[in-house]
Amino acid sequence: MEKRGLFIGRFQPFHLGHLEALKWILSREDRVVIGIGSSQYSHTHKNPFTLGERIEMIWRVLKQEGILDKCLFASIPDTDEVHSLWVAQVKSCCPPFSTAYSNDPLTILLFKEAGIPVMNIPFFKRTIYEGTRIREMIAKGDREWEKLVHPEVAKFIREIKGEDRLRSIYINKTRK
Amino acid sequence: MEKRGLFIGRFQPFHLGHLEALKWILSREDRVVIGIGSSQYSHTHKNPFTLGERIEMIWRVLKQEGILDKCLFASIPDTDEVHSLWVAQVKSCCPPFSTAYSNDPLTILLFKEAGIPVMNIPFFKRTIYEGTRIREMIAKGDREWEKLVHPEVAKFIREIKGEDRLRSIYINKTRK
Amino acid sequence: MEKRGLFIGRFQPFHLGHLEALKWILSREDRVVIGIGSSQYSHTHKNPFTLGERIEMIWRVLKQEGILDKCLFASIPDTDEVHSLWVAQVKSCCPPFSTAYSNDPLTILLFKEAGIPVMNIPFFKRTIYEGTRIREMIAKGDREWEKLVHPEVAKFIREIKGEDRLRSIYINKTRK
Amino acid sequence: MEKRGLFIGRFQPFHLGHLEALKWILSREDRVVIGIGSSQYSHTHKNPFTLGERIEMIWRVLKQEGILDKCLFASIPDTDEVHSLWVAQVKSCCPPFSTAYSNDPLTILLFKEAGIPVMNIPFFKRTIYEGTRIREMIAKGDREWEKLVHPEVAKFIREIKGEDRLRSIYINKTRK
Amino acid sequence: MEKRGLFIGRFQPFHLGHLEALKWILSREDRVVIGIGSSQYSHTHKNPFTLGERIEMIWRVLKQEGILDKCLFASIPDTDEVHSLWVAQVKSCCPPFSTAYSNDPLTILLFKEAGIPVMNIPFFKRTIYEGTRIREMIAKGDREWEKLVHPEVAKFIREIKGEDRLRSIYINKTRK
Amino acid sequence: MEKRGLFIGRFQPFHLGHLEALKWILSREDRVVIGIGSSQYSHTHKNPFTLGERIEMIWRVLKQEGILDKCLFASIPDTDEVHSLWVAQVKSCCPPFSTAYSNDPLTILLFKEAGIPVMNIPFFKRTIYEGTRIREMIAKGDREWEKLVHPEVAKFIREIKGEDRLRSIYINKTRK
Repeated sequence: MEKRGLFIGRFQPFHLGHLEALKWILSREDRVVIGIGSSQYSHTHKNPFTLGERIEMIWRVLKQEGILDKCLFASIPDTDEVHSLWVAQVKSCCPPFSTAYSNDPLTILLFKEAGIPVMNIPFFKRTIYEGTRIREMIAKGDREWEKLVHPEVAKFIREIKGEDRLRSIYINKTRK
Repeated sequence: MEKRGLFIGRFQPFHLGHLEALKWILSREDRVVIGIGSSQYSHTHKNPFTLGERIEMIWRVLKQEGILDKCLFASIPDTDEVHSLWVAQVKSCCPPFSTAYSNDPLTILLFKEAGIPVMNIPFFKRTIYEGTRIREMIAKGDREWEKLVHPEVAKFIREIKGEDRLRSIYINKTRK
Repeated sequence: MEKRGLFIGRFQPFHLGHLEALKWILSREDRVVIGIGSSQYSHTHKNPFTLGERIEMIWRVLKQEGILDKCLFASIPDTDEVHSLWVAQVKSCCPPFSTAYSNDPLTILLFKEAGIPVMNIPFFKRTIYEGTRIREMIAKGDREWEKLVHPEVAKFIREIKGEDRLRSIYINKTRK
Repeated sequence: MEKRGLFIGRFQPFHLGHLEALKWILSREDRVVIGIGSSQYSHTHKNPFTLGERIEMIWRVLKQEGILDKCLFASIPDTDEVHSLWVAQVKSCCPPFSTAYSNDPLTILLFKEAGIPVMNIPFFKRTIYEGTRIREMIAKGDREWEKLVHPEVAKFIREIKGEDRLRSIYINKTRK
Repeated sequence: MEKRGLFIGRFQPFHLGHLEALKWILSREDRVVIGIGSSQYSHTHKNPFTLGERIEMIWRVLKQEGILDKCLFASIPDTDEVHSLWVAQVKSCCPPFSTAYSNDPLTILLFKEAGIPVMNIPFFKRTIYEGTRIREMIAKGDREWEKLVHPEVAKFIREIKGEDRLRSIYINKTRK
Repeated sequence: MEKRGLFIGRFQPFHLGHLEALKWILSREDRVVIGIGSSQYSHTHKNPFTLGERIEMIWRVLKQEGILDKCLFASIPDTDEVHSLWVAQVKSCCPPFSTAYSNDPLTILLFKEAGIPVMNIPFFKRTIYEGTRIREMIAKGDREWEKLVHPEVAKFIREIKGEDRLRSIYINKTRK
C-alpha cells in the first residue's frame, strides 16, 4: 500500500513555508493528507480565515503546482482544551496515514503519547515565513506580505477582501 | 411596516451611555430590538451579571423612562470563536429588524460580510460611560459608579449585592 | 415588591390556549415573565419556529391585547438531557420571579426538587388548543389552524411562509 | 503491578446483577475501576439518577459488602453520537486498567477497534436483573423492585424520593 | 470564473447512486464541492463510517473514475437540531460554490430560506441505491450489497472490517 | 447521618498542601467528598494531568495514608464561563455533602449565592505548596518538586513521564 504522511497545520494563511514543508514531506511519502486544524474558527487573530477559504487557497496552489493528485484534504475541529481527545479526533477526521508531521511541541507530545509516529519538519526560513507575522503585515497594510505567500493565495485573499477583514479583527478591542 | 433597528451590546451593566445610544437609535427607527449578547456568561470580569439580571435592569430603566413599548428584548448566546455562525445566530434569536447598530469592529465586519446594513452609534462621553471602567469602579468600591448608571440600575445592583460579587470576581486569581 | 410569575413554554406556535393561560396567570400575579424554552431549536417537528419568530408572534399578540406592559420576555436554551442543570439555567436566563407555572410533569418535578414553588395551569380546551395538533394542521394545509391562534399569529406565520416550512419539515424523512 | 479491570455501566440504578458481575470481575482481577457512563444525564427514562446519586448508591453497597478497598470510582461523560472519541474519553477519565468488561456490543466494538482487551461478563439472571425493567417497576409503583437491588440502594432511592421522580419522568409526554 | 456546484450528502456509504448523481452534476457544472455532512458522527445506525473513512472511499472512487481534479472535498459537522445555523455552517466549511444540489426537503428548505440557489438531483434507481437499505444488507451479511457500491468502496469496507462493525451496531440495543 | 464536607480542587498535581487541607477537613467532618474540578482538561499549563491520572495519584496517597475509607471521589467538569450553572453541576456530580471547603473567591461566591454553606481552609505553607509553582518546577527540571508532593505522587508522575509532558507543554508557543 502507498505510504502516507499527515501534514497538520492551521494554514492561516497557507504560505510559502507551508508549501516547502509539503514538498519536503512529499519527497518522503507517496501521498500527503493535509489536515487543516482548528477548522471551526474564523475571524479571530489566530484564525482569520474560514475552513472553506483555507481549503480554497490550498487547493488553488496545489493545482497550480501540479501536485493536487498527491494530496488528500481533511479538516480537524479543535477539541479546545480537552486535549486527551485530540488524537482520536485526528484519526476520525483523516483518511488513513502512517506518519504525522508537525513542529508543534504539544502536537508531537500528543501523538507520541498515543503511540503514533511523528516527525519534525525542517524549517524553511522560519522567521520569514511565519503565520503570525504574515497576519500582522496584512492587518497593517504592509504589502510585502504578498511575497510570503503563493501568488494564488495573494490573489484569493484580495478577492475575499481579506485585508479589510484582518484590519477589523486587529483593531477590535472590546468584543469578547 | 414599521422600521426596526437592532441595538447589540453586552450591557454589563446597562449604563447611561447605553441609554443615550438607545434614544439616538429610537430617533431614527420606529422600534428597537435590544439584543443582549454573550447572554450565557456571568460571574466573570467581562460579564459579571446574568442574562436575567441584565433583562431586569434594562426593563426597569425603559419602564421608568416610558419607552418600554418602543423596545423588544432578545438575547444572543455567544458562538465563542466560531464567528462564522454568529450572524445566523443573531438572526435566529431576534425578531425581524432591518438595520444593526454597533461600534464594535468585529460585529460591524460580520454584519457587512453577511450583507446586513450596519451603522455606527455616535459615542456619548465614551471615556466616562464605559463598561470596563464601571465594573472596575464597582469592584474597587468607588461609589462614583452609581452616577454613571440610571438610578434604577444602581438600585438593582445593590439589591442583588452586585458590589460583593464584583469584588469577589476581581480578586479571583486561581480559578480557571 | 410586585408579585411575578414565570410562564414556561415552547410556544410552537403561541396559540389561544397559551393566551388564556397567560391571562389566568395575570389574574393571580402582578406581572408575568414569559420564558420561551428550547430556545435554540428551529425547523424541527417539535420546534418549527426560531426564537426570534416566537418572540415576534407573542409580542404582536400582547400588543394587540394591551398587556405588553404586564409581561417580560426571557428565552431559555435547553440543556438537552442534562436536566440537573435546567433549573439553574432558568434562574440565570430569567428576571426575578417567585412562582413558576407549568403543566409539564418533568418541569414541575425539576422545580420541586430545587425548592421553587410551581403551579399547574387550568387547561383551556386542551384537546383543541394543542401545539402538536396545530403544527400538524399547518403542515397538512388544514386551514382551520388559523382559528386556533390569535389573528396576529396567523398573519405572521403567513408572512414568513410558515406553511411551506412546516410542509417541508413534515415530509422530511432522510435527514438526521 | 496489580491487575485492574474496568467495569463500565450506567448503573441506573445499581442492581444485584451489577453486584454479581462486579464480584465475578473481582475474582479475576486485583482491583476494579467502576466506570459510571453517561455520567452527565439525569431525570430521563434511561438515566433517572444523577452521577452523584449513582456514586452514593454504589459506594454504600461496596462499603456494606466490605469491598470498598477493591474498587476505584470513575465517571465517563457520554460523547453522544461522536463514538470515535469515546475510547479516548474512557482512557482520559479512568485510572489505569488493562482489561475492560462489558456486554454491550457497541462498547465491545469500540474497545476492539482501539486495540484494548475487552471481555464479556456472564449474565446473572439477566431477564430479572435488568435496568429498564427495574426503572419501569419503580415508576409503576410495583414494590417488588426493592428485591432486585441491594437493601442499601432501596433505602437510598426512598431517601431521595426516587419513586416520585420516576413516576413524573414516565408520565411525561410533552417535554422534549 | 468556473461554475461550481455543492453536492451534499452523508455518504454512509458512498454508493453507485451517489456516483451517478455526482456525474450528473458534473455535466452541468465545471467543478463540484463534495460536502460530507454529519461529519462528526460514526458507529451509529445512520452514520456507521467515520469522516476519514468516507473521505477515503470517495477519494478512491474518484481517482479510479478519473474525476479527482473535478472535485473538492469539504466536511460539514451537523449543528444538531439548531438548524438556523446550518447554512452558515455550510458556507463556512466549504470553498465557494454557487448552486447547492440535494433531494432532502429540509436541506432544500434551509437553502431557500437563506436565498441560496438549490436544485433537485434526478434519482438513479432510488429504491435500489439507498443508504439505509445498503447498511442493513451489510449488517445482515447479505453480500449483494457489494453490487450497489463501486468496487473500490466494497474493497475498502472489507479492509476496515466494516461488516463486523455494522453487525455490532445493528444488534446493539442497550447503549444510549 | 454522617457529616460530610466537599473538598474542591483541580489537584494539578495533588500536593502536600492538599493533603494537609484534607486532613484538616477530616478533623471536622466524618467523611470528605473529593471533588476534582476542571475534570475534562489535560495537557495544558493549568491542567497538565488527565482526570484518570489525578484520581490515581490521590487514590494512592489516601491508600498509603490509610484514609481511603474516609473519602469519596467525584469529578466535576467545568462549565467554562457559564458560571451560573456551576453549583448545579457540582450538586449533580457529587454524592450528598453539607459543607463545601475552598479558598477560591469565585467558588466561595457561587456557593454563597446558591445558599450552600462554604468554609475557608487554613493555608499550609501556601507559598511553598502551590500548584502553579510545582508545575513550573517540574517543567524546568528542578527536582526539588518531588519534595512538595507525597512520594506516591512523585513516583506516579515519573511512571507516566509527566516531566516530559510538562516540558513539552511549557515550551509550546504556537498551538492555540
